[in-house]
This record gives sequence, C-alpha cells and structure tokens, in this order.
Amino acid sequence: MNDSSIPARLRAAKAAGLALSHAPPGERREVLLAMADTLCDPAVRASLKQANDADVADAEAARARGELSDALVRRLVLTTAKLDVLAEGLRQLAAQDDLVGRVLESRELDDGLVLRRESCPLGVLGIVFEARPDAVPQIVGLALRTGNAIALKGGREATRSNAAMVDALHGALERVGLDPALVALLEGRAEVSELLEQQGLVDLVIARGSAGFVDHVMQTSKVPVVGHAEGLCHIFLHGSADPAMAAAVVRDAKTDYPAACNAVETLLWEPGAEEALLRTVEELQAHAVTVRGCEHTRAVCPVDEATDADWDAEYGDLVLSVCRVDGLGGALEHIERHGSRHTECILAADQSAADQFIARVDAACVFHNASTRFADGYRFGLGAEVGISTQKLHARGPVGVGGLVTYRWLLRGEGQVASDYGPGKRSFKFS
Amino acid sequence: MNDSSIPARLRAAKAAGLALSHAPPGERREVLLAMADTLCDPAVRASLKQANDADVADAEAARARGELSDALVRRLVLTTAKLDVLAEGLRQLAAQDDLVGRVLESRELDDGLVLRRESCPLGVLGIVFEARPDAVPQIVGLALRTGNAIALKGGREATRSNAAMVDALHGALERVGLDPALVALLEGRAEVSELLEQQGLVDLVIARGSAGFVDHVMQTSKVPVVGHAEGLCHIFLHGSADPAMAAAVVRDAKTDYPAACNAVETLLWEPGAEEALLRTVEELQAHAVTVRGCEHTRAVCPVDEATDADWDAEYGDLVLSVCRVDGLGGALEHIERHGSRHTECILAADQSAADQFIARVDAACVFHNASTRFADGYRFGLGAEVGISTQKLHARGPVGVGGLVTYRWLLRGEGQVASDYGPGKRSFKFS
Repeated sequence: MNDSSIPARLRAAKAAGLALSHAPPGERREVLLAMADTLCDPAVRASLKQANDADVADAEAARARGELSDALVRRLVLTTAKLDVLAEGLRQLAAQDDLVGRVLESRELDDGLVLRRESCPLGVLGIVFEARPDAVPQIVGLALRTGNAIALKGGREATRSNAAMVDALHGALERVGLDPALVALLEGRAEVSELLEQQGLVDLVIARGSAGFVDHVMQTSKVPVVGHAEGLCHIFLHGSADPAMAAAVVRDAKTDYPAACNAVETLLWEPGAEEALLRTVEELQAHAVTVRGCEHTRAVCPVDEATDADWDAEYGDLVLSVCRVDGLGGALEHIERHGSRHTECILAADQSAADQFIARVDAACVFHNASTRFADGYRFGLGAEVGISTQKLHARGPVGVGGLVTYRWLLRGEGQVASDYGPGKRSFKFS
Repeated sequence: MNDSSIPARLRAAKAAGLALSHAPPGERREVLLAMADTLCDPAVRASLKQANDADVADAEAARARGELSDALVRRLVLTTAKLDVLAEGLRQLAAQDDLVGRVLESRELDDGLVLRRESCPLGVLGIVFEARPDAVPQIVGLALRTGNAIALKGGREATRSNAAMVDALHGALERVGLDPALVALLEGRAEVSELLEQQGLVDLVIARGSAGFVDHVMQTSKVPVVGHAEGLCHIFLHGSADPAMAAAVVRDAKTDYPAACNAVETLLWEPGAEEALLRTVEELQAHAVTVRGCEHTRAVCPVDEATDADWDAEYGDLVLSVCRVDGLGGALEHIERHGSRHTECILAADQSAADQFIARVDAACVFHNASTRFADGYRFGLGAEVGISTQKLHARGPVGVGGLVTYRWLLRGEGQVASDYGPGKRSFKFS
C-alpha cells in the first residue's frame, strides 16, 4: 500500500520536516544526540562494518582492475575512528544554537501592526554526493539540526554502506519519536533525475562531486542548486613575500590534500619575488610535485614547460603551474580570467599590497599569508559544511547550517488596510 | 573606438562598480544626493518632460487603438509629483546605513590567524522591468547605494523617457566624479537576450513584469535570476473572523490596486464564517468586484460560478474567487496546492488558529488580520524594493538593499598551514 514514488516520498518528507520545524528546539537537539549514540552502538557498528566491508571489497577489486582510484577506496572505508569522529561531530552540532524561528528583524509599522522577519528551514533538501558513507550522518545531522527534511543519494560504490547508515539513522529517529520519512535514501541515476524535476517539493539541491557532474546537475535541475563546479585557486607571491613562509604555505596548499577543491593549482609571482619562487619550487620538487612554468619562470628555475591550457587546469593532483605576472595588477587580471572565485591568496610582508589584493579580488575566500587549505567549514569554525559554494547568492564559500535556513515575513495586525496609509493619510512609524 | 558591445559595456560597468565599492561610504551617499538634486533641476525636468510627453502621446494613441491598457499609460506618465517623490526617496536611501564592508562575523582561529566575513556588493546587476520610467532612479539608487554597477532595460513604451532619465543620472554621476559606465542602458530584446548569457559578467538578474515574461527570463537565463513569476495570494476567513474587519480587509486587498502581485485572488472560508463571508461579498460587489464562488459559496450568497481554473488564476483585475474549505487544514491544503508562496493571510479573532496558520503556511509573507497589500518593501520599512521574491534562496519577499549584497570570507595570517592542525597537533581556538 506504500506509495514509494519519488514525489510521494518527498511529500512525506516535507510533512515530517514541517513537524520537526515546529517542534521545540530540544527535539532538534535530541535527534542528533540519538544519532550519535546509534553510531556508537556495537550492534549498529557490526552491521555498518558488514555492509561497508562488502562495498570496500568490490571497490578494491575495481581498483585492482584500474577502474577506481586509491583515493576513492580510502574515502569509502568506514573505520571505528571515523565513526567516533562522526559521533563527536553530531554532539557538537547538537550543542550549537538553534537557527529555527529566530527573530531576525522586528518593526512596529503602526500601532498594533507588527512585522517580524523570522528564520525557518528551507524545507526539503536534496543532496547528491560522492562515495563517502561518513558524509551521510554529517549531512543528515546538518539538515535535521535546521529543521529540514532530506533526500540523499551517494556515490554508487557506497550503496550498501549508505543503506546501512540510513537504516541506523532511521532507528535513531524512531527512538526519539520522529518520522523516518524525514530522511529518504535515493538510489540510481533515474531517481536523481526525478529529484531534480521536483520543483515545489524540493527546495534546494546540493551537488558535490566532480566538476562535470556538478555542472550537469546545475544545468539540468529545475530546483535551485548550490554546488561548486570548480576550485581553481591561486597564490600570488608578492615581491615582499617571505621566502620561507612562501615555501611552507605553497607546499601545504598543494600537498596537504591535492584532490581538494581548496588546493592551490597555480602560483603567480612578480619580478622581485625570485628568491621566494626558487625556495618554493625547490620545496615542492622535494615533495614530488611536478611544476610547470611559463617561459619567464623557466628562465629563473628548472621546471617543465606550461602551455596555455595549464592556466585553466584544476589538476587535483601533485602538479602546480607557475606564471610570472606584471605586479599586483597582472595577478588580479590572471585571477579574474582563470580563477573560479573559490579561494585566492596573497603572500606578502607589505600590508598595503595585501590590502589592495583583498579589496580587489572577487572570490568567496580571500587570504593573506595563510594556506588556501583553510577554506573549509570545519576550519572556519562553522561546525561542519555541506559543501563550498562559488556562487554569490544565498551562501558563499563554506556552507554550514546557516546556508540551510531561509526566512519568512510575519505581519500581525488588527484589521489594518493599506489604503489608509499615504500622503495626507496615516503614516507608518518608520517614515 | 568605443567598444559598445554588451560584454564590453558590462566589463566597464564591473570595473566602475569595483571602484565604487572600495570608495569611502560617503561617496555612495553623495552620488544619491546628486541624483536627487538632478531630478529637481528645472532644465533636467524640462528634458524629461519632453521625452516623456512623446512616449505618452504614442501610448495614448495605442490605447485608443485598444493595444495598451489605461494602467500602462498611467504608469508611464512622469509627473512633477512623481519626480518629487523620487528625489525624496533617493535622499532617504542616502541617509540609510551603508551595507558595504560590514563585518558580519569575526573569529580568531588561532594566534595571528583571523577570519572575517564581510559584506560586499554582488557586482553587476541586470534589471529588466516594465514600462515605468520612475523605476529607473529607484533601481539605480538601490544599486549604487550598495556599490553595484547596473545594466537596465525597461519596457519599450518608455524608451525615450528611460533614455532621458539615464542621461540625467549620468550627468549626476559625472558631477561627483564617478564613471557613467556604472549605469548601462540596454535597448531591445536582442540586448536582453545577450545580457542573460553573460555568466561571469553579470551577477544577478532581477526580472519584473508579466508572469509569462518573468518565467521566460528564469528559464533562459544563464545568470542567477530573482523574480516573481506570480502572486496568487489567499485570505482565509476563520470561523472567528470579525465580519466588519473581513469586509474591510478583503476589499482593500482586492481593490486598492488589483494589478499588484500582492492583491488577493482567492478568498477561502470555513463553515462558521458565513456572516463574515456575506458581509465581505456584499462589500466587494458594492465596489464593482466580480465574485465567483464554488457551489457551497453559491448556496450562501449570490455570486457567479467558479470553475477549477479559477483556483489557479491570477486575475490582476476586479475579480475574486471564493472557495469553501474544510477548516484550517483544508485552507492549508488549498494554499499548498494553488498558492504561489507570495503572501497568505488569515482573518481570525482566535489567536491559536492564527498561530497554527502562521506556523504551517509556506510563503514569503504570512499575515494575520492585515491586508495582503502590506507585502511591499516600502510598507515593510525597507526603504524601497527592487521586486518581491517568491523564491526561498538568497532573498525572500520584498527585496531591498539587503538583497543586493553578498559576503566574502577574509583570512589574515602569518604563514599558517593547515597540516599543522589536527588530532595530536595544534588545535583551533574555537574547538
């Protein structure tokens, strides 16, 4: 009798979300604590391990055939340590302030006519993400903390792990008296395509994964999408950059996690920064990074030849392109032309150069003397993130719980009508 | 030598906007005051009048041929009184707080590693709007006040008026030393189509006009769009509604300005509200409103017959549909199915019914005992609005200056690297 169509499941999710959004704040906290407890339950851990072992075995076989990367397999494995961290993350999120029903603005328009702007959940979120089962409790936690329902679809290599994880979370929901319909697990591409059609039933789709995939979602979805299609980040070596700092920061930005969207892809330098450049390139080459330079760079240090295509490449790997630019203005032009508006950084001892750079770069994150790898919800102190947005609207940069709420305007009156106000008639209190 | 292509003009606008956004707050105030002075200058008024008279003469002729509505001609006319109101509006906007470069959040992640979230302009706005020349200084004022550049295209019936208005505003810009490229006037459909293609050069398109037009913009634009395609607002008469209040509020909501998106289109009532219904229908009929009712409504009062199509109709005219619903739950279901998430209202003396309605309706504006016509940026005390958004992301309801800014994350360090932080290593101050 159960209607398991996508629209039916989303309608059930929406109704359950509405109930959660009206519940007292305590309930949105309790459910996260229950989820954390579940992830520490030995029986749950055993069934998670069984499902995950099966996914990992298949992935290892695919890797042996050269079909999957090492990185994917590493992300797929659910270790005890990862579960501990997840449980702790949910408890921290539970302890954060509740963002539902906050009065953001309040104004008495006239006697007995009071306007309030109040925060509220978006409603139903759709999240499509990579093969990474630890993302499930993180994402569900962020959604429920903010009173949203959620439909999720993870990478297919994690199918059994995700199903076991959602089963476990449904158990936690039921234990605190919430409707499991709040969390809907989708499977297969056809269900994702259908999700992207559900204007009115889904309020926001968050897309994570490869640039190609995120682009595809953005272009086909009828529902608004937050996603980042690219992270092409630059570091600019100003003439005043400290050479030792440059070597350390660029090494971290390139090698700490090369596949991350906040890794640096192109190093820019201006005449005067040769010493910092040399130290940096040496450090990178000592750490297995392939460096490709423009002709001016190659005149200074021994690196491979870069072609024009390198300036637009998000390597996601231990490769860095290096381009000489004509001072700060040249750096800004290069970034404007090739950057993805994600994270841009200047290394400079000269404060006024740094201030100019910060003022004039158009990007979600702009850094001075710090690694681009800090562009991350956790490191920014947001608690957790559902993704990093390179769009300017709604949410920019790392998107935490704040990106999962919207607001409503509530007006309470005593029968006031608009035609009573105007020149020569009643006036509003604010005017 | 002047490259007058759309991309070239938008690039010039972007550069000029960047300069304005870095200028001290005083400059963003000065330019609005200069614009206000310009609109009061007798010579400017004379040339505005000449241009507007020509537009109005053509429009009158078209109206005589039945091609244009009275309302359009009324909106087209630029009177001295309208110019006075516009100048006053610009002065009020100049007096408001500056929204550029505000520190929205600040956090010391570690010693010497400080994160700030700072507000900034969106960049270049594109606005496509109806034949209403008084919208030009309003929109330009909102854009410049927030440090944005702007490309505008108004309805073709106002072509000469808009050109004269933009000329006048360019004069004001030059007088305070700003680049006129900040305000680009587009002409013709081809230029609008090209505007909607300029991903990366335009940051937000605001679309105003008919539902069909706004839908078209939303579906073809590659740039994010804020626009409202529809305003299908309901008023629900609860059994406890005061009959006199109901008659007055519904009359205002329907007749104050029937073409507005915040006018009521459908009246819902529950058993018990018959007296309020009768009083309301009488009042409406006495004010030339055509009332169409469902069969239950027609059993109570003499009104025309409504068909199913009426529940989805945005009349924009002196027509109201009336539907009996099965209590508050029935009203919520009707609104969920037929509403446009714009403005929904309950009339009720019963506070708990009103609270339930407010909690459970999903709309940008939710009102209790007040006319839907209050859903307006000016009446909300926002100063002015560029439009009313029925979307949930970024800006919801009346969009004032707050909807024209975004934010950036600025991180200033002393060479910190991400790999120094983590379990067993340095920890962040917030953790």
